[in-house]
This record gives sequence, C-alpha cells and structure tokens, in this order.
Amino acid sequence: MSIKEQLQHKIDFKTKPTGSLGQLEDIALQIGMIQNTLSPKIEKPAMLVFAADHGLADENVSPYPKDVTWQMAMNIATGGAGISVFCRQNGIDLKVIDAGVDFDFPENTPIISSKIARGSKNMMHEPAMSIDECKLALVKGAEFVNAEAKKGCNTISFGEMGIGNTSPSSLLIHRFLGLPIEECVGAGAGVQGDALTHKQKILIEVSEKYNPSTPLETLATFGGLEIAMMVGAFIEAKKQNMVILVDGFIASAAMLTASQFEPTLKENCIFCHKSYEKAHITLLEKLGVEPILDLRLRLGEGTGAAVALSIIRSAVAFINEMASFEDAGVSNKE
Amino acid sequence: MSIKEQLQHKIDFKTKPTGSLGQLEDIALQIGMIQNTLSPKIEKPAMLVFAADHGLADENVSPYPKDVTWQMAMNIATGGAGISVFCRQNGIDLKVIDAGVDFDFPENTPIISSKIARGSKNMMHEPAMSIDECKLALVKGAEFVNAEAKKGCNTISFGEMGIGNTSPSSLLIHRFLGLPIEECVGAGAGVQGDALTHKQKILIEVSEKYNPSTPLETLATFGGLEIAMMVGAFIEAKKQNMVILVDGFIASAAMLTASQFEPTLKENCIFCHKSYEKAHITLLEKLGVEPILDLRLRLGEGTGAAVALSIIRSAVAFINEMASFEDAGVSNKE
Repeated sequence: MSIKEQLQHKIDFKTKPTGSLGQLEDIALQIGMIQNTLSPKIEKPAMLVFAADHGLADENVSPYPKDVTWQMAMNIATGGAGISVFCRQNGIDLKVIDAGVDFDFPENTPIISSKIARGSKNMMHEPAMSIDECKLALVKGAEFVNAEAKKGCNTISFGEMGIGNTSPSSLLIHRFLGLPIEECVGAGAGVQGDALTHKQKILIEVSEKYNPSTPLETLATFGGLEIAMMVGAFIEAKKQNMVILVDGFIASAAMLTASQFEPTLKENCIFCHKSYEKAHITLLEKLGVEPILDLRLRLGEGTGAAVALSIIRSAVAFINEMASFEDAGVSNKE
Repeated sequence: MSIKEQLQHKIDFKTKPTGSLGQLEDIALQIGMIQNTLSPKIEKPAMLVFAADHGLADENVSPYPKDVTWQMAMNIATGGAGISVFCRQNGIDLKVIDAGVDFDFPENTPIISSKIARGSKNMMHEPAMSIDECKLALVKGAEFVNAEAKKGCNTISFGEMGIGNTSPSSLLIHRFLGLPIEECVGAGAGVQGDALTHKQKILIEVSEKYNPSTPLETLATFGGLEIAMMVGAFIEAKKQNMVILVDGFIASAAMLTASQFEPTLKENCIFCHKSYEKAHITLLEKLGVEPILDLRLRLGEGTGAAVALSIIRSAVAFINEMASFEDAGVSNKE
C-alpha cells in the first residue's frame, strides 16, 4: 500500500463513521503525506512576519499613514498586535523581520534587521524593486526559513506588515492568473466607495506601464520587499519539506508567486482562512483549495494562520490518538 | 455607555482596522455581554457527554448496531474517541454520563451512572418517554451543570452518544420549527439512498401518530433520554449564566427544545460548527446564527464544540491582550 492508502486506512478505521471528521481528515492525510508517516507531528511551529514599506502608498491606496508600518512592526515585536496575541496563545515562535521599512528601529528593538531598501519604489514611476534587490530578498527569506529548520521547526507560516501591500498583491494575482485587475482589487484595510475606485484606477495605470516576462521580473516590478522575502521563504519551506500554513490575501499572493518558481509548492500548503477580500476568494478557487476558517478576518499579519493552527493540531491529534474499532472493541457498520 | 457600547469601543480601538477580526469580534462582544465585563474569561471549560439508547433503533434508522452506544460510551470515557482526544488537546474537562444506555457498565468504569431507563421506547409503538421520565431527565441534566458551576466552570458544552439519535433530533426540529419532516432528516452517521428513504418514511409515520401540545410533551414523545438530559443541562447553563458552546445537529436540536422552556437561552449560546447534516444548516438559518467552523464534521459527541474552543479562546485573548492604538503609539486611520 502507498503511504496515502495506509493513511486513509488508518483514518477510516478510527472509531467514527467514515469521513465524519470532514476536513480534519483531509488535513491529517495531507500532513501524513508531506511527512511520509502514519504518525505526523507539528514541531516547533514558527511565524515569520516580514515588514516593509511601499512607494505606491504615496498614491493614497491605503487609508492609513505610512508610519503605521514601523509602528505596527514594533507593536507586533513587543507583543501587542493581533498576531502577537494569537502566537502566544498557540505556542508559535514569532519573529518580526525588517525587510524594508522606511524607519530606523532603535538598537535594542526585538526586530530582526534585514533591510534591503527603505521601502519599495513607487510603481507609478518605476518598478518596485531592481532585479538585484528582488533576488536578495528571495535569498534572505530562504535563509530565515533555513535557520528555523535547523532548530527543528517542521511547521511554518508567514505574515506581513506593510501599509499599501494589498496593491502589489492584487497586481501579482492579476498577472499570474490573468484576471482583470478589477477582480483582484478589494477593500484592503478599509478602502471603500470613491477610494476603492481610485485604488483600482491607480492599479490599472500601473499594470499598463509594464510588461515583465519572467516570474522574477514580475515580482520585482509589482511586488514589495516583504512580499519578495515571503516568496523566498515559501520556496525554501517547500525545499525543507515543511508543513506551510498560508494566511490570507497577501500571503496567498506570495504563495502564488512562489509556485511560479516551485510548481509543487501547493502540496505542502494548508490554506488557513478565507479572507474577506473578494480577490482572495477568487484566488483560493483558482488554486482549487479549501481553506480551514471563514471568520471574515482581514487583518493580515499572519493572524488567520496562527488562529487556525489549533485546528491543524486537532487533525494531527485525532490521527495519532483516536482508537481504532479493533483497539476499542467497537462494532463497525453492519 | 452600556456594556455593549463599552465593549465595542474597546474592540474598535485595538490596533487593527475596524472590524478586521470579523467573527472573533462578535464572539468577544457576546462573551463580554454574557459576563458583563470588559475582560471576559473562559474558566474551567467542561464537556458533558450524555449517552442513551433509542427504541427507534429497532426500526433500522442507523447503519450501526445498537451495541455501539455502550461501546462508544466506554471508548469516550477511556480516552479513545474523537471527543476524548479533542478535550485533552484543548484542556476541557470531559465527563460521560449514562442517561439511559441499555447495558450494565462494570463498577469501576469512568462513566457517571444516571440511568433513567434502559433506553427510550420505540416511538413506532409508544412515546419515547413517560412525562415523569422526561422530567427526571431534565432535573438530572440540570444537576450535572450545577455541579460544574459550583466548581468554577463558566463555559460548558454538551455532547451525546446514542445510536439512532439523529431521528429524535429530526422529529423535534420538525415539531418546533414547523418544517416538513423531509427537510429535517439527513444522512446521520451514514444513511444514504434507500436507507435514507426508509428513515424518512419511519419518521413521517411516527410524526403522524402523535399530537403533543406542550414542549414537555413533545420532548417526552419524540426525544431521547440523553437529549432530554441535554435539554435540562442547557436550561440550567443559562440560569448559571454560562457561556454555552453548542455542537452540531443533535446538540442544536436539544438547544432548540430548551429554548421553548427558556426563550433567552440563545444569548448565551455560541454555535460552534455547521454540521454536514442538511437539517442542521436549516436550523442554524432559522435561529439566525453564524457557526464558527464549517469543516464538514458529522461525528457528534460534542467534537465540533471541543475543536472550536480554541477559536473562542482567540476571541477572548485578543480583547484582553491586544494593545490599543493609544497604548501602542500607532496612528489610526486618517
């Protein structure tokens, strides 16, 4: 029997009606297949939050001032943000990485310095990054994941903080899925009405300016420093054969970008929640995946993944700990 | 400001876009209102699993033999069932109560004896319970909840084990919501095709036999011993002002029944998951509630509630632990 068949057999002979644990069974099967074992484990789960500023924020695509990027990076690192709370609750090791924030953090701040530039460029005028900057971001992202793997982490997730970063995410989805830009642009952190129309107009204008041909060029043109670092992190996490928890809209856009480089990436990815961003729902449908949670979350930072980890732990717990019909002396279906 | 307004203000000034924690915000608000505090807490969560047999099982409404009720009650009590695993994972105190299993458990079994009869009667021939048996079940259910409250438990959930118990649940929903029986009957633990048609036919026949007029008579006629005990437990949990986690189809049918006795019950209830039973979805819609999880679970036992507790803990954690814009020195929307 293949490992898949063995896992399915183990799941089917647990003391429950066949299939009655629904998506928990799918998750247990997937993690068992990733780890090639009938006894999958979640070890030292980690959350890497990448922060960066975006030149495009100058075009008023977000209702929040740009300073919120560094302020929130500090808040995350010092324990007061949503992601800080949910990582603490679920025993997830949280690290905040400065991928390109336009601010000089004080020396003793618990933020890992990996600044590639003081924010990406304004795409209305020039590509977000140079090819070299983009390549460097990919390498750095991979290094952070590699360091976690060396410490025995087998389950990882990526969050982000960057005022304006739903815009590059929309542009990347637009390019990689070939969808009209309007279908890829949502409310972000609270853009509505005229402001939403303005955001769509800006992104259409940006999209029409450039015609990159490779995934690397596309990422450099339309991405952001934290997004590029996440892309590198996703690719390395697949190489390390980790269980990868994919958060919401921006993380999923980075995952989609990473899968242009590493087409089998999806095998290791668990999609943690369906965000309230319309474009995220479209993306999940195109990927043919079923997210775990649907709680109308749209905070980002990795929060959906951190909250979903306990559900993933439930899946791992049942396959390891539930008795089989035989073990428990329970009669099966007649 | 009312407590509701104060809670909403506290939620809205956390460092996140307004409303961006979606349903977690609704849950935090609800628990804060139940506990009348800006700092809600989940204390000593408990899961009471009521087990009983059903006379109607003689009519082949379930694909599992009746012995599975006692076998699974033992499996739950000794740690091998789904609910055992999920309670252990989430730090929930699990108790298994024999409300009416047709089996003599050995003396030293970790099952609480509260047997009212050796199963309910076959409704094809007579009402499931006498009025006195039903009243006794209500009282016993309340006593178990009262004992938990005395120990400092403020969050409770109810599970069940009873081969054939989707049938009484369907009948109760049919009567209390006035829905056609066909809309209230689903696959249960795996009934399909001809077997499903047979189950529907049996339930229509049963329904046509009786015309009870009060909620108590309806419960006695169409219920089950474990369901009646759950109903008593729901009513007492509301009296004790607990946070009540409602599991799937059968627990929701018991909650609907309990709310005929205690119309404000819903205020204290958090609906934990949308089961794969069609009738459960209908019931949730009629109640106008939004369940937390939608994982295609249909195991029962309280499993959906146990798995969802971690999400409820996330809601309580964010309202207590996240920094406000002011505390964290983060700029709010412009």
